Amino acid sequence: VLQHPGLHLEFASANSQAGQTALIAGQRVGFIDNEESALADAALVFSALPHGASAEWVDRAAASGAKVVDLSSDLRPGNGHADGVPYGLTELTRQAVESAAVVANPGCYPTAILLALAPLIKKGLTKPGATISISAASGVTGAGFTPRPDLLFAEVTEDFRAYSVANQHRHLAEMRAVIAELGADNDLVFVPHLLPVARGILATITVPVTEEPGNPLEVWEEAYSGEPFIELTSEAPSLRDVVRRNVIRISCTVAKGIRQPTLIVIAAIDNLVKGAAGQAVQNANIMLGMDETLGLPA
Amino acid sequence: VLQHPGLHLEFASANSQAGQTALIAGQRVGFIDNEESALADAALVFSALPHGASAEWVDRAAASGAKVVDLSSDLRPGNGHADGVPYGLTELTRQAVESAAVVANPGCYPTAILLALAPLIKKGLTKPGATISISAASGVTGAGFTPRPDLLFAEVTEDFRAYSVANQHRHLAEMRAVIAELGADNDLVFVPHLLPVARGILATITVPVTEEPGNPLEVWEEAYSGEPFIELTSEAPSLRDVVRRNVIRISCTVAKGIRQPTLIVIAAIDNLVKGAAGQAVQNANIMLGMDETLGLPA
Amino acid sequence: VLQHPGLHLEFASANSQAGQTALIAGQRVGFIDNEESALADAALVFSALPHGASAEWVDRAAASGAKVVDLSSDLRPGNGHADGVPYGLTELTRQAVESAAVVANPGCYPTAILLALAPLIKKGLTKPGATISISAASGVTGAGFTPRPDLLFAEVTEDFRAYSVANQHRHLAEMRAVIAELGADNDLVFVPHLLPVARGILATITVPVTEEPGNPLEVWEEAYSGEPFIELTSEAPSLRDVVRRNVIRISCTVAKGIRQPTLIVIAAIDNLVKGAAGQAVQNANIMLGMDETLGLPA
Amino acid sequence: VLQHPGLHLEFASANSQAGQTALIAGQRVGFIDNEESALADAALVFSALPHGASAEWVDRAAASGAKVVDLSSDLRPGNGHADGVPYGLTELTRQAVESAAVVANPGCYPTAILLALAPLIKKGLTKPGATISISAASGVTGAGFTPRPDLLFAEVTEDFRAYSVANQHRHLAEMRAVIAELGADNDLVFVPHLLPVARGILATITVPVTEEPGNPLEVWEEAYSGEPFIELTSEAPSLRDVVRRNVIRISCTVAKGIRQPTLIVIAAIDNLVKGAAGQAVQNANIMLGMDETLGLPA
Repeated sequence: VLQHPGLHLEFASANSQAGQTALIAGQRVGFIDNEESALADAALVFSALPHGASAEWVDRAAASGAKVVDLSSDLRPGNGHADGVPYGLTELTRQAVESAAVVANPGCYPTAILLALAPLIKKGLTKPGATISISAASGVTGAGFTPRPDLLFAEVTEDFRAYSVANQHRHLAEMRAVIAELGADNDLVFVPHLLPVARGILATITVPVTEEPGNPLEVWEEAYSGEPFIELTSEAPSLRDVVRRNVIRISCTVAKGIRQPTLIVIAAIDNLVKGAAGQAVQNANIMLGMDETLGLPA
Repeated sequence: VLQHPGLHLEFASANSQAGQTALIAGQRVGFIDNEESALADAALVFSALPHGASAEWVDRAAASGAKVVDLSSDLRPGNGHADGVPYGLTELTRQAVESAAVVANPGCYPTAILLALAPLIKKGLTKPGATISISAASGVTGAGFTPRPDLLFAEVTEDFRAYSVANQHRHLAEMRAVIAELGADNDLVFVPHLLPVARGILATITVPVTEEPGNPLEVWEEAYSGEPFIELTSEAPSLRDVVRRNVIRISCTVAKGIRQPTLIVIAAIDNLVKGAAGQAVQNANIMLGMDETLGLPA
Repeated sequence: VLQHPGLHLEFASANSQAGQTALIAGQRVGFIDNEESALADAALVFSALPHGASAEWVDRAAASGAKVVDLSSDLRPGNGHADGVPYGLTELTRQAVESAAVVANPGCYPTAILLALAPLIKKGLTKPGATISISAASGVTGAGFTPRPDLLFAEVTEDFRAYSVANQHRHLAEMRAVIAELGADNDLVFVPHLLPVARGILATITVPVTEEPGNPLEVWEEAYSGEPFIELTSEAPSLRDVVRRNVIRISCTVAKGIRQPTLIVIAAIDNLVKGAAGQAVQNANIMLGMDETLGLPA
Repeated sequence: VLQHPGLHLEFASANSQAGQTALIAGQRVGFIDNEESALADAALVFSALPHGASAEWVDRAAASGAKVVDLSSDLRPGNGHADGVPYGLTELTRQAVESAAVVANPGCYPTAILLALAPLIKKGLTKPGATISISAASGVTGAGFTPRPDLLFAEVTEDFRAYSVANQHRHLAEMRAVIAELGADNDLVFVPHLLPVARGILATITVPVTEEPGNPLEVWEEAYSGEPFIELTSEAPSLRDVVRRNVIRISCTVAKGIRQPTLIVIAAIDNLVKGAAGQAVQNANIMLGMDETLGLPA
């Protein structure tokens, strides 16, 4: 927001840090208590409150006349999805975002995985009844900034491990709901891992398909033609291609030497940008009638 | 070998470093030219020559009367497998190794993946005709020690990427051959990734099965009872559990909320120990009639 | 240059990569052979050729009428310094840079260390005859991009070591020459270290002074008042404060409990930005009569 | 202790984890409440309680007849040093340790720095009245295992920073007291830094000396002849030379091109081994009349 040419920061609230300041992008920002928020003065409010605590403030902000981008999971599909609140996976729901008063900003894993899968699903190419297997890995900022022993440097460096195995990750409901809405008849196996990097998500997705495509990237090229924040690559994307940028990079190859036609789709995003704050600004730009790319690092 | 109580290093050859010395485990070791190797003086030879160059020296060493552990892929299943040369995945082939003159030491990825899959396959539990999806990640020592721009610290730190996508990894033939020998009617999708860590391999395997087991670890407990280097865990294993040790750690959970009964099997090893030199010593111990665990870090 | 609103890239030469292209800041750039460089079409040339090879091309570019920023050490003080070629430590030599045809862009360590020491030296506060002790650490990009075994990820991660000990670093002559020009009667002990990070330099400098200052930062505040790229902090600076930015951050504290009045000055820069390309653009901006901050990340 | 052939673990207490177990070196160890400690059954007690809380338990353990190695700073020189409690910098105080009932185990930074400086000081080679400048860096385990926001992986990776600048580190009193006891008339400037590595300390020490030595390492070779855990090297030591080992590596070079004869002494240890638990076991071995090297990784 501080670096955005079309936005002005009216206030920043943070109960636990109320009264403190932080140096952000060369500017010193003071935090106020949530209750002191001058909601009536805001044209748009970003709510990054914890899951469960956010919905109430979304209502308060909306009641005060502000548009709202909710970064929590409270209003996302598969969670407490509310009527009239579009899911802000911008490239798929741009039209609904344009006229929305409130947008539910997607989770970081769902952003990477759903943008990667949507073109296949919408064209009916995923094999009906089949399981899509997703192995994903995230940098540690994906776990937030609360100090936890298992996120200390000495515990994470030189390590790699899966977590929330057995389809227990809280983002799974969001992904299932969206692929169903898109028309998929597929199950998901989702195994996230913790990477010894600060930021970035890479998802490697094995998708049984109805038939082997000639040019595997064609489906995405058609679906995402002209999209400013989607990059399609013949080489497998890597985290360093996307960190500090509001983009997703997607590659697709055909698995060789097996009987069932199967695609290997790989997607990479920065979990803090396209997977969170960047996409939130992208949605805000649209809601406020500004250029969608304004203030965003491409 | 230097720290092994039952072995004595007769010579170490290394053409590219012939004439040089290295400090290993507190002892200074000199390297000779391969051609100066006193093969006749050796009871056992470890050949760690490059793929393609090793087979000839295995023959020369065997002809001189030495037993041989070949760490290259030259004699492995799916490559140039030779009759009478057992595959040294010790826990599966111990009896054949005992009486062998030459053993083909497994690759690092196959060690982790095959030890993880074998108990399921041998009990006929993998779903016939189904695809097993393997997402694996390796530390950079898996790529060897030849300086390459893409392995420089500045290129690897804070990055993560897949490589040899589309079932193009050279270890795939080895894995396919072994699971077929074990009786599996399954295809493999194998996507390896490069981790920003020095050592360690973690494989996350999605396996369609004929039916959901009650206690998912039971199959492995039964197959690997009493094995000194196999650790079964209810929690997903991590690299730091296994680095610098000659062990594999395996976990298994049932994927929840999907129609096709599916297991998520995760295995971790140190690619330089259980995935290479450690397993080579384990095989050598057996071939020489010594205690299998001698000189190996548990 | 590609992201600079006042510059246009006419050509990029790179003998070893001639004919290849690279994706830089979202644009694909082709490299030509040095000899194909259309020097006459360039208003300004950045020479980043190796030390020893650069001076000749600086002459050729200057002869063709282009202004030149030389990033090699060929023309720096203490090396082959040439008359009329100012040293481009911008904050100290701005006036000379304004009218220069050729500027010698400083080395990365000298940028951090000289900007940190200059205010003290110019006020005559360093103790005459005393030794200034500099312990500095650099990320691995400071060593360039040529693949070397000791710069492989597996060799650098979890390690830390000094190099060029005993005052043998090639940047020492540059620093000695400049502090002498500034009027210092001091010796330097300089010990650089290799950090397991990609980028950034931190220099910790112990300076015997003639007397203990009341407010240790005052000397720098006075010297650098209004400078857009110099940040003075009461807390010790860290690499993450400066990476990807064209700034230097400097702190100063008085060593407590010792007899000789002594300051501990700490400076941090990004070796690739303020320590190289960023400062080069800063100098180019001045040489071309543009706003000094144009195109530079603050 | 678990891997030590001459020791048997009688109990392990840990108030905050009482009732919990941990897997250590392949064995499961249960923690009891401190008050349940069967001190009377112990021949030797290691106290690793926090500074301030340890002294009382040292007294209780000693009163029960156990020998005690205290890893806290409570009884160290410069802190609450007690008569008859030798400082356990083993190579300097072996004789006192042999007959001691209680030993104060040194801090990690002091271990590296004092073992490096002692031979120079004892020979009277440090320049009287001069300041010795110490720049040291530690891996994050030096800060303990309490979760702190500034020790999270995402805050430490790719960063480097000084802390406790201005001679404010709590280990300084310990170092000052010991060098004074050894006969030095020198001040210390000590600037520690936080490294993005899990373990290891490297100290780079600039020492003004009375005269330039011919062979700079000779002083150490003479002082430490036959020491099993001291390694002298002509090349600057690095962390990877010492991690997971109970050794200190020391190098010394003469600073070239300066007027005041000055040595650059570099020392590296593993802060968790020679800088803490390893040296504690080394002391215990001596106190119990066992081989000093027993159970210690060389």
